[in-house]
Amino acid sequence: MKVAIIMGSTSDLPKVEPAVDILKSYGVEVNVRCLSAHRAHFGLSQFIEECNCDGTEVIITAAGMAAALPGVVASQTVLPVIGVPLSGSVLDGMDALMSIVQMPSGIPVATVAINGSKNAAYLALQILGTHHSEIKNKLLGERKEMENNAMKANEEVVAKFQSR
Amino acid sequence: MKVAIIMGSTSDLPKVEPAVDILKSYGVEVNVRCLSAHRAHFGLSQFIEECNCDGTEVIITAAGMAAALPGVVASQTVLPVIGVPLSGSVLDGMDALMSIVQMPSGIPVATVAINGSKNAAYLALQILGTHHSEIKNKLLGERKEMENNAMKANEEVVAKFQSR
Amino acid sequence: MKVAIIMGSTSDLPKVEPAVDILKSYGVEVNVRCLSAHRAHFGLSQFIEECNCDGTEVIITAAGMAAALPGVVASQTVLPVIGVPLSGSVLDGMDALMSIVQMPSGIPVATVAINGSKNAAYLALQILGTHHSEIKNKLLGERKEMENNAMKANEEVVAKFQSR
Amino acid sequence: MKVAIIMGSTSDLPKVEPAVDILKSYGVEVNVRCLSAHRAHFGLSQFIEECNCDGTEVIITAAGMAAALPGVVASQTVLPVIGVPLSGSVLDGMDALMSIVQMPSGIPVATVAINGSKNAAYLALQILGTHHSEIKNKLLGERKEMENNAMKANEEVVAKFQSR
Amino acid sequence: MKVAIIMGSTSDLPKVEPAVDILKSYGVEVNVRCLSAHRAHFGLSQFIEECNCDGTEVIITAAGMAAALPGVVASQTVLPVIGVPLSGSVLDGMDALMSIVQMPSGIPVATVAINGSKNAAYLALQILGTHHSEIKNKLLGERKEMENNAMKANEEVVAKFQSR
Amino acid sequence: MKVAIIMGSTSDLPKVEPAVDILKSYGVEVNVRCLSAHRAHFGLSQFIEECNCDGTEVIITAAGMAAALPGVVASQTVLPVIGVPLSGSVLDGMDALMSIVQMPSGIPVATVAINGSKNAAYLALQILGTHHSEIKNKLLGERKEMENNAMKANEEVVAKFQSR
Amino acid sequence: MKVAIIMGSTSDLPKVEPAVDILKSYGVEVNVRCLSAHRAHFGLSQFIEECNCDGTEVIITAAGMAAALPGVVASQTVLPVIGVPLSGSVLDGMDALMSIVQMPSGIPVATVAINGSKNAAYLALQILGTHHSEIKNKLLGERKEMENNAMKANEEVVAKFQSR
Amino acid sequence: MKVAIIMGSTSDLPKVEPAVDILKSYGVEVNVRCLSAHRAHFGLSQFIEECNCDGTEVIITAAGMAAALPGVVASQTVLPVIGVPLSGSVLDGMDALMSIVQMPSGIPVATVAINGSKNAAYLALQILGTHHSEIKNKLLGERKEMENNAMKANEEVVAKFQSR
Repeated sequence: MKVAIIMGSTSDLPKVEPAVDILKSYGVEVNVRCLSAHRAHFGLSQFIEECNCDGTEVIITAAGMAAALPGVVASQTVLPVIGVPLSGSVLDGMDALMSIVQMPSGIPVATVAINGSKNAAYLALQILGTHHSEIKNKLLGERKEMENNAMKANEEVVAKFQSR
Repeated sequence: MKVAIIMGSTSDLPKVEPAVDILKSYGVEVNVRCLSAHRAHFGLSQFIEECNCDGTEVIITAAGMAAALPGVVASQTVLPVIGVPLSGSVLDGMDALMSIVQMPSGIPVATVAINGSKNAAYLALQILGTHHSEIKNKLLGERKEMENNAMKANEEVVAKFQSR
Repeated sequence: MKVAIIMGSTSDLPKVEPAVDILKSYGVEVNVRCLSAHRAHFGLSQFIEECNCDGTEVIITAAGMAAALPGVVASQTVLPVIGVPLSGSVLDGMDALMSIVQMPSGIPVATVAINGSKNAAYLALQILGTHHSEIKNKLLGERKEMENNAMKANEEVVAKFQSR
Repeated sequence: MKVAIIMGSTSDLPKVEPAVDILKSYGVEVNVRCLSAHRAHFGLSQFIEECNCDGTEVIITAAGMAAALPGVVASQTVLPVIGVPLSGSVLDGMDALMSIVQMPSGIPVATVAINGSKNAAYLALQILGTHHSEIKNKLLGERKEMENNAMKANEEVVAKFQSR
Repeated sequence: MKVAIIMGSTSDLPKVEPAVDILKSYGVEVNVRCLSAHRAHFGLSQFIEECNCDGTEVIITAAGMAAALPGVVASQTVLPVIGVPLSGSVLDGMDALMSIVQMPSGIPVATVAINGSKNAAYLALQILGTHHSEIKNKLLGERKEMENNAMKANEEVVAKFQSR
Repeated sequence: MKVAIIMGSTSDLPKVEPAVDILKSYGVEVNVRCLSAHRAHFGLSQFIEECNCDGTEVIITAAGMAAALPGVVASQTVLPVIGVPLSGSVLDGMDALMSIVQMPSGIPVATVAINGSKNAAYLALQILGTHHSEIKNKLLGERKEMENNAMKANEEVVAKFQSR
Repeated sequence: MKVAIIMGSTSDLPKVEPAVDILKSYGVEVNVRCLSAHRAHFGLSQFIEECNCDGTEVIITAAGMAAALPGVVASQTVLPVIGVPLSGSVLDGMDALMSIVQMPSGIPVATVAINGSKNAAYLALQILGTHHSEIKNKLLGERKEMENNAMKANEEVVAKFQSR
Repeated sequence: MKVAIIMGSTSDLPKVEPAVDILKSYGVEVNVRCLSAHRAHFGLSQFIEECNCDGTEVIITAAGMAAALPGVVASQTVLPVIGVPLSGSVLDGMDALMSIVQMPSGIPVATVAINGSKNAAYLALQILGTHHSEIKNKLLGERKEMENNAMKANEEVVAKFQSR
């Protein structure tokens, strides 16, 4: 199982790493690249071509500002492409969200929340889970655990306010 | 191959039907439902449960305003959930977009453009294509055709302006 | 007199506690829960069911981002549901406001200001006050005091600028 | 049982009437007024004073643009005040929403969706329902019916797409 | 010559003081008040009444969030009312701007920039200047000086970059 | 008494004429000009110069899109300058509002609502009213009448709903 | 003198044609293409390559929604690239504006107003005018004429209101 | 080769200097001015007149808030004018962006990203490059280097994640 992650700039690394960690914890091979649609046009095309041939199943892309990266990737593959809008120094990521989610008919980008790279990883896992039962089972387990943790947190909140 | 489509209101039907048509043209079985997260809470949960067991591979959801539907569906499945924000009588769908894309960590919704149900269908097909090669091949064919049509349209534009 | 407060995440606690304190200062029993609509779906439904039966009169909900919590609660009760949109790391709470206030017909959420949990408490008290005269009288007293304090603050401002 | 409805302008009438009809269908006495906070300042204060004394339990307010009406009413009563932001010729009601929902601490306005006067009526009924059991029961009945209708609509959608 | 300045909250003082200082430097008598439209409703009406009778020529108002103050003042006087939208902890003052500038026909508020209390003072002086020639002359002088300072700043910039 | 009105484009005429009519009904001499800050730069400067010398007391400006006109006028006069943001084919006048209201310190523009030329006229009259008692008295009369009309409209609304 | 114009979709033609007409009226050779960055990726790259070699001096691009076209063109040329954000069925072109103007460092796109293809043409002419004196002179002439027309329009406005 | 840079306020200097440095590194003569459209109206006109005669080929303008500067400059020249919207203490530069990009037909401003003065410099260089081959060649070299650096950064990212 292979997932590619492409960010637009090395400054995006801290926002992208959580996605890498989540995917690796599921035993997924992750190919991480920093290939701006605007600055590394040809390197990007080449890498997408590789993804199209090497068994990569999902491509996660993360970019800020006029975030062309996700759409440009999506235009060169029929693999599912996930887009993470990143917030920059102004506009709180609304520019990137608009640039990623408003794709024209025929070339979808699966957009997640602003700075939501964790959810990009989970969405990629869910896509893998449609045909890798071990991923799906692990996701179901983690979801169950998430719910258990949520209920435990709830109990702590209940206790906190009852003891007052 | 099975995809579920859930809309929040029957008034959303005209915006959702193009997705049904695209999926069917790919030979995908499509289960269409109208189950509002707010008005048909239990019917919705029941249907998601069915989807979780009956071989459904992707769930497409479409909703307007405070569009809770996609997130509520996503919280009850680990299948990939696609969300289509629909525009209403005011705000041009920005309310629905915010309600769908800004999901918390762990429960992603793959958001497409406002009123972008066609792309929801294509994204679902791309997800199916990761393990159904006939879908992937048909997508590659359609993409090629899309590009050919784009190039033909370009030639017409060139001709139109040269003949002036 | 009983009011329930549900937040979506333990990180919301500091923003929610002022509401608890105000309600308790009015002698209202407050049941606080942390039950995300997305992460604790079933625990949430169960708690709403309890509220529907145990004499709870108002439910306050507070959530950020794609804040489905208030609407999901509202869809499972005919008790008045108050929604507090919380600001997150981006977008200043506009995402949560859109997700809470733009409810479809038939399932209202009484929305207050972004991060306005104090006003959620006062609104709950006003609702209680419609039939608990002691609450109404205390509210009238506090309103009178608020006005007196406002007038005293005004006098200090007058004095400050006259002495210049 | 008495509810007051105040609109800011007679041009708001068509947007407000659905609320009147819903409340009347529940046997609620409805006092409708057109009293702009800006143009009928004293008439408005006088009417709020009446509401404070005549058994009115909830005040619904509807206004557009710099919608001061809901907040001004709220500042002169401790009855629950519901605010309906109305869209005007520009800005889709965002101006009214901002003017109504962003109230300062101590003076809440229970804000519903833009042009959401129906939900203002339902919210008022839910507030009445906290101590008028016949209202609560009727609301529960209507909610059940709403769900039934939603499920019937769903069945029609299922049938429509199966017959293709 | 008399100008009134009304702010909605004592926390607005630092943002309002520059206006007081500018007006005083022009020899204008300034009456400063802290009278929230929502919390000090009657005190506010009383003060506006005073302004209407005591020779006050302009009223400056400054408020944040659902800033009803400017409009409420404007509704009780035919003196020119200037509104300063103040930014709060979220939304950068857009809520206050919408609440102040979007006044209905017949009740204008002269709105200046977000946090623009200095310009509120200058606008008040310009209004006074229409019939107090000493104010107008001083304004013309200050404008000339402003231009001179601007040209000097320009020269420093020129020098700075030429010396490189 | 003289007021100048400058619009940026002849297409703005229908939105500006109501202001002319209101001012004339108060016996004010109105000089109307169509002088874009961008297209008629020198003609505009010349006209402002005239206004500065010919007894004009207030300048109303109306412009859409990147509405530089109000600010450019304000920079060449110390007369009070009123700005009316006009909506264009897109953006509902938010572009013009931003361009008009967000003036830098020292050069205020008194901004009114989007398309609010009537209020521009009333604001101009209020400014004239500070020293022309006949204007002030007429404004007080019209305000009284406005209130009377509002109360009559209210009575009609009351009657309409009582007769049901 | 050669300018290229690239639009993203044939439906953009009516919004793009005015630019063609203006450029032709200046004797500029115009190469018009319809080459979506998303749908005609390779055709687009090929045409940019041609532009880079065939004496094209400026490239005008026009696109709506997630308008990647201008940035993608800019990333493959050091010719000046002008971007025209086009409005679509929702959001009034704000999505396209964000996608075009917020380019990362090193790859500028000269952005003009939403639907502002005429100004794209004028900007291209101004760029040509820096070294084609006949273009510059014609632009100066047209600017003079524009000003004359503006002054004539002004005179008509003056006449219209004087004759009343 | 000569480029003019005009900022609206000395406080904009740190945001403008990167543009100066880039232009100088290309051997371009840079004339930097601080001339507000609002505060230094006549000085500004005079400088534009100079630019029109002294061989200046491009004018870069940078301004915040109601940023009239770029448009005012554009209205007095047919040289290409580049506008840089600067963010201020509120609104993240959206006010300046609206004020700069939404120019009326006939007077374009080439707008770059919020705070994007570096790209203003590159755009100016691209314009110079249309007829100064040494600039174009250096731009092509830098673009190549940018791409090389991007590919090196990519390799570091690849290495970083492979070594884990």
